[in-house]
Amino acid sequence: MARRVVVQKYGGSSVADVEKIKSVAKRVVATREQGFDVVVVVSAMGKTTDELLARAKLISPSPSRRELDMLLSCGERVSMALLTMAIQELGHEAVSLTGSQAGILTNARHSGARIIDVRPFRVEDELDDGKIVIVAGFQGVSYKREVTTLGRGGSDTTAVALAGALGAEYCEICSDVDGVYSADPRIVDAATLLKAISHEELLELTSHGAKVLHAESVEFARRSGVALWARATNGDGEGTRVDKPEGVDSEHPITGVTGVRNLVRLRARVTQSMDHMLSVAADASLPVLHLDADHEIADLWFSPTDVPDWSKVREKLMGQVEIEEACGAVSIVGDFFGRNAAKLARARSVAAGIGIRIKAMATSPLRATLFCAEADVDALTRALHRAFREE
Amino acid sequence: MARRVVVQKYGGSSVADVEKIKSVAKRVVATREQGFDVVVVVSAMGKTTDELLARAKLISPSPSRRELDMLLSCGERVSMALLTMAIQELGHEAVSLTGSQAGILTNARHSGARIIDVRPFRVEDELDDGKIVIVAGFQGVSYKREVTTLGRGGSDTTAVALAGALGAEYCEICSDVDGVYSADPRIVDAATLLKAISHEELLELTSHGAKVLHAESVEFARRSGVALWARATNGDGEGTRVDKPEGVDSEHPITGVTGVRNLVRLRARVTQSMDHMLSVAADASLPVLHLDADHEIADLWFSPTDVPDWSKVREKLMGQVEIEEACGAVSIVGDFFGRNAAKLARARSVAAGIGIRIKAMATSPLRATLFCAEADVDALTRALHRAFREE
Repeated sequence: MARRVVVQKYGGSSVADVEKIKSVAKRVVATREQGFDVVVVVSAMGKTTDELLARAKLISPSPSRRELDMLLSCGERVSMALLTMAIQELGHEAVSLTGSQAGILTNARHSGARIIDVRPFRVEDELDDGKIVIVAGFQGVSYKREVTTLGRGGSDTTAVALAGALGAEYCEICSDVDGVYSADPRIVDAATLLKAISHEELLELTSHGAKVLHAESVEFARRSGVALWARATNGDGEGTRVDKPEGVDSEHPITGVTGVRNLVRLRARVTQSMDHMLSVAADASLPVLHLDADHEIADLWFSPTDVPDWSKVREKLMGQVEIEEACGAVSIVGDFFGRNAAKLARARSVAAGIGIRIKAMATSPLRATLFCAEADVDALTRALHRAFREE
Repeated sequence: MARRVVVQKYGGSSVADVEKIKSVAKRVVATREQGFDVVVVVSAMGKTTDELLARAKLISPSPSRRELDMLLSCGERVSMALLTMAIQELGHEAVSLTGSQAGILTNARHSGARIIDVRPFRVEDELDDGKIVIVAGFQGVSYKREVTTLGRGGSDTTAVALAGALGAEYCEICSDVDGVYSADPRIVDAATLLKAISHEELLELTSHGAKVLHAESVEFARRSGVALWARATNGDGEGTRVDKPEGVDSEHPITGVTGVRNLVRLRARVTQSMDHMLSVAADASLPVLHLDADHEIADLWFSPTDVPDWSKVREKLMGQVEIEEACGAVSIVGDFFGRNAAKLARARSVAAGIGIRIKAMATSPLRATLFCAEADVDALTRALHRAFREE
């Protein structure tokens, strides 16, 4: 009989304390009792990763990335062992596996590794033995046999990559939000839950600030064709289906609006310091949000929260590269939005109408991004949502 | 040039917070600057292990031992990564290694594994590269490639076993006590620091309650001939040297007195339930402190704190085996004490003189142990120290 596998991923807030872990255990067991083989990917409990990171910063302003990975990978191992115990306590067989044991192979780039292969032989063996398998998210092992971490949100990627490698029927990303919204409901009152969204549009949303799923995981799902759901851990809503574009009905001219804060703009002279800027950025694996250059000036936008040793990188840039901090960006995502000059013009005039200065603008076929001051992000998000989605 | 290696082990109280980790880093660097290759073994920060264990107990009264190992092994990994960062911050090259990476191979007995081999090739490579090597204590990897833990105090064993395999000049066990005392100074005011003690006597002390070093580590040191020191992390005392008997001068008739609380006595009928008792004990890897049997009754003494699933083991024994909890024992250690009938008689009369009922007595050549109620342990320790050591 063919195996019917479901992969579920539970985020940090879903396993934040012992009671929540017990309730996740019940949800896992319920899926198992529907006849599925269940693989569960867990994040670290609540704020564990932040707490570990804060301790590291007290010791060293820019700790070595290898040691950071050693440190941070422990967070998921704690929650995975506790969840496994909770499932065993419900009378089901379960086993926990580290990223390495689950066959998550990555490149050697510490604190931001990419999954290069998934070899889930041990996972399959344990499923064959009738066990529920709990895997530590966010981590893998490099070909050098070193512990690596995948960067923020990496547990989503672990889940989707495993789902692809196991030929899962579907992959659920469970968190404290009940799906993907047209904007962050904490910022925009009129934000609505999307029933479905295409991989491409979700990729644009998550790459530009939406936190419900990690961008890389959406890309993995797109490439592997895994059916993906974003759902609440507690609650019986259907959540949001992530699907091929033809599976997504759109009643709205745009899909959503998303904002991102704490951006930095690096500005270099093309003929003098651009090479230096790019080489420092490359060494630091600095995750480029957007780069644009004309014949004179090159601007590179990125989020320093994803750069563990930003203070050290900053020093290398100082003097040669102009650094502007406390920037932000708001993106509008929707089919061919970025190709529609009339809509782009309207977006600019919406910003001007509420007195917000746009520092730069960038587009892709599915998106337009307006860069602004960090302090303007929420107001601009609300204004653009009102103009394009609530009409 | 031959390598001159020193192994240092720092206990949980020595790395309890970020400031203490920084001060350990300075101590490590000072040793490095004396020209030694330094390997450091660390325990989990402060009460981390107890906190993780408490969380597990909230989820399951008797969690699976494999999952416990997955959980508890994280404690040392956190402190090892933080200490490595602190040393790097002082401008020295350092690298952290898990038990598995450091080549600590164990049997497959979870939550109480024994080291079966040490293959420190990676440690040697990193030392050759000029690095200070920080190893997670208390853990290893089984031949099944599973994470195992060595049981309480296992970090001492990691340190001594590594020191043996690396041919270290000496191994320092650093803690918040400045060496081995003739009795616990918190209980006995007149307790004095020992300058030296033989492996055999220290083994008897640590097996019967003295917490300064873990018994198994002393046995490793005895077999490998590693020079061992028990020292305070802070302070410039010489500490206690652990040496061959001929290297130890004794000005006292006994070396020390030690007490242990929270013992359980299992009592079985030899012809009816003794086999059952021993088979349950064997399955649970129950660490036998003492067993004695005549033709009718068999008594087995052990400490349930070393048995993670004691409540489950207890159930299997109930009905067939008499279980007496809240027992304790006080041991007197000194050359041939256990063979000296006059001294044994005097020990009994000391107990009787303060109205303490002795439940049982047991001896080895170097030791006599008096079993009593848990509540009597401190008073008996004081009385025996006074009678034999303060005379």
